[in-house]
Amino acid sequence: MADPITVEDPDDPRLADYTGLTDVELRRRREPAEGLFIAEGEKVIRRARDAGYEMRSMLLSAKWVDVMRDVIDELPAPVYAVSPELAERVTGYHVHRGALASMRRKPLPTAADLLRTARRVAVMESVNDHTNIGAIFRSAAALGMDAVLLSPDCADPLYRRSVKVSMGAVFSVPYARLDTWPGDLKTVREAGFTLLALTPDERAASLDEAAPHRMDRVALMLGAEGAGLSARALTAADAWVRIPMSHGVDSLNVGAAAAVAFYAVATGRPRP
Amino acid sequence: MADPITVEDPDDPRLADYTGLTDVELRRRREPAEGLFIAEGEKVIRRARDAGYEMRSMLLSAKWVDVMRDVIDELPAPVYAVSPELAERVTGYHVHRGALASMRRKPLPTAADLLRTARRVAVMESVNDHTNIGAIFRSAAALGMDAVLLSPDCADPLYRRSVKVSMGAVFSVPYARLDTWPGDLKTVREAGFTLLALTPDERAASLDEAAPHRMDRVALMLGAEGAGLSARALTAADAWVRIPMSHGVDSLNVGAAAAVAFYAVATGRPRP
Repeated sequence: MADPITVEDPDDPRLADYTGLTDVELRRRREPAEGLFIAEGEKVIRRARDAGYEMRSMLLSAKWVDVMRDVIDELPAPVYAVSPELAERVTGYHVHRGALASMRRKPLPTAADLLRTARRVAVMESVNDHTNIGAIFRSAAALGMDAVLLSPDCADPLYRRSVKVSMGAVFSVPYARLDTWPGDLKTVREAGFTLLALTPDERAASLDEAAPHRMDRVALMLGAEGAGLSARALTAADAWVRIPMSHGVDSLNVGAAAAVAFYAVATGRPRP
Repeated sequence: MADPITVEDPDDPRLADYTGLTDVELRRRREPAEGLFIAEGEKVIRRARDAGYEMRSMLLSAKWVDVMRDVIDELPAPVYAVSPELAERVTGYHVHRGALASMRRKPLPTAADLLRTARRVAVMESVNDHTNIGAIFRSAAALGMDAVLLSPDCADPLYRRSVKVSMGAVFSVPYARLDTWPGDLKTVREAGFTLLALTPDERAASLDEAAPHRMDRVALMLGAEGAGLSARALTAADAWVRIPMSHGVDSLNVGAAAAVAFYAVATGRPRP
């Protein structure tokens, strides 16, 4: 617990965690390397804390110090109070919600860890848009998926934009990264999961006919917006499933498709 | 059919349909009053034409003239060829896809017209975000909803952003505006529809238990992101349904919720 420290110099090294937040490439390199991520806004910061992430520091404009008082009081991390103008100079954008926290990453579980207890798993291939990753985690959490597995080239669920769009669901749905793709899918199968690839291909069984909610353990594979699953990933699956479509529409957006598929996979199970 | 007309003056009155496209308030007033809407990008323009909308004019940068040659050749509307810089000065933004068309609106059908033949209808209350409207139409088209009814204060499905996000689905799913809300819902009930209100309220029946796909005619009512359906709309419904949720998540975003509900309502029907 410490009193907020007023900082007036944008080059103060204590603010280094927050510099250049709009530079996606920079942050993409820095954040995992330095073991941090940024949570933005009161609700998301509280959810990160409740999920057991440790805080490195907080950056608040003055009026947020009172709102976050209980968080400040219980934590050993320093709190920097700054003007909105200084926050903008440091981060590179207008911080709408007035509160940022730099959080310490936790070691990720392994896929094997997650597969031991999960029964419904989403497997994403090459989803590298931060908004889509966040939206998919939000739906995964709401619709009862137990875990998410990411191919090595998926975007970072803890990137600021992903965290925000997910409304903090990236903290509540455990996830792991697969080391080799699609090779590591065999670990998933060996753990007793049926690998279902979601594809618009007409040869796929429609989700309602496939009735995945009656299967014991399901790993639902999703590809990126536009490209969909790769041929290698489709080949590695046990079966293909598709969302029945009308009106000659090519496809749903990946967020809508994921939500429908999660619902189809999870519904019918007893709920917590 | 006419040869493209090169325009070099941003104040040329023939470009008036395209001025100030980034000014949402201006366009919101002008477009319905002048009976036009803007389609952006080759795919969307072609879909508008295929859906029977008449073109008032096209605004193309030079390299798009060849791509759109077949459309230009068959249409009586003038085509204005401009530089990307001039397009930006007129419209107020960088036109990424290089092609804009001003299309003539068609008279909207009445709700009674649509209800005569439809069996699955989405009813939106106060959805006034253009992106959400577009996303919901895209899902409605893909997942087999027959028509959309809008409360008087819903946003315009033909606003440029809605059209784009819908990928042109606003042209393929017929829609009507209700004059009074929620009073006109009785017309829907009188046409033989069961009015199902989608709500996170715990007293609602879960969608899988309610099994709306077994109902003869269903009107699924959706509220706006955040607020959800109003108390008046909930009262006017025949029954409440909810998407079963886990992990203590408050809600899905409205696009994901709509997709799941459309799937639940439409699945199990014979498909075209």
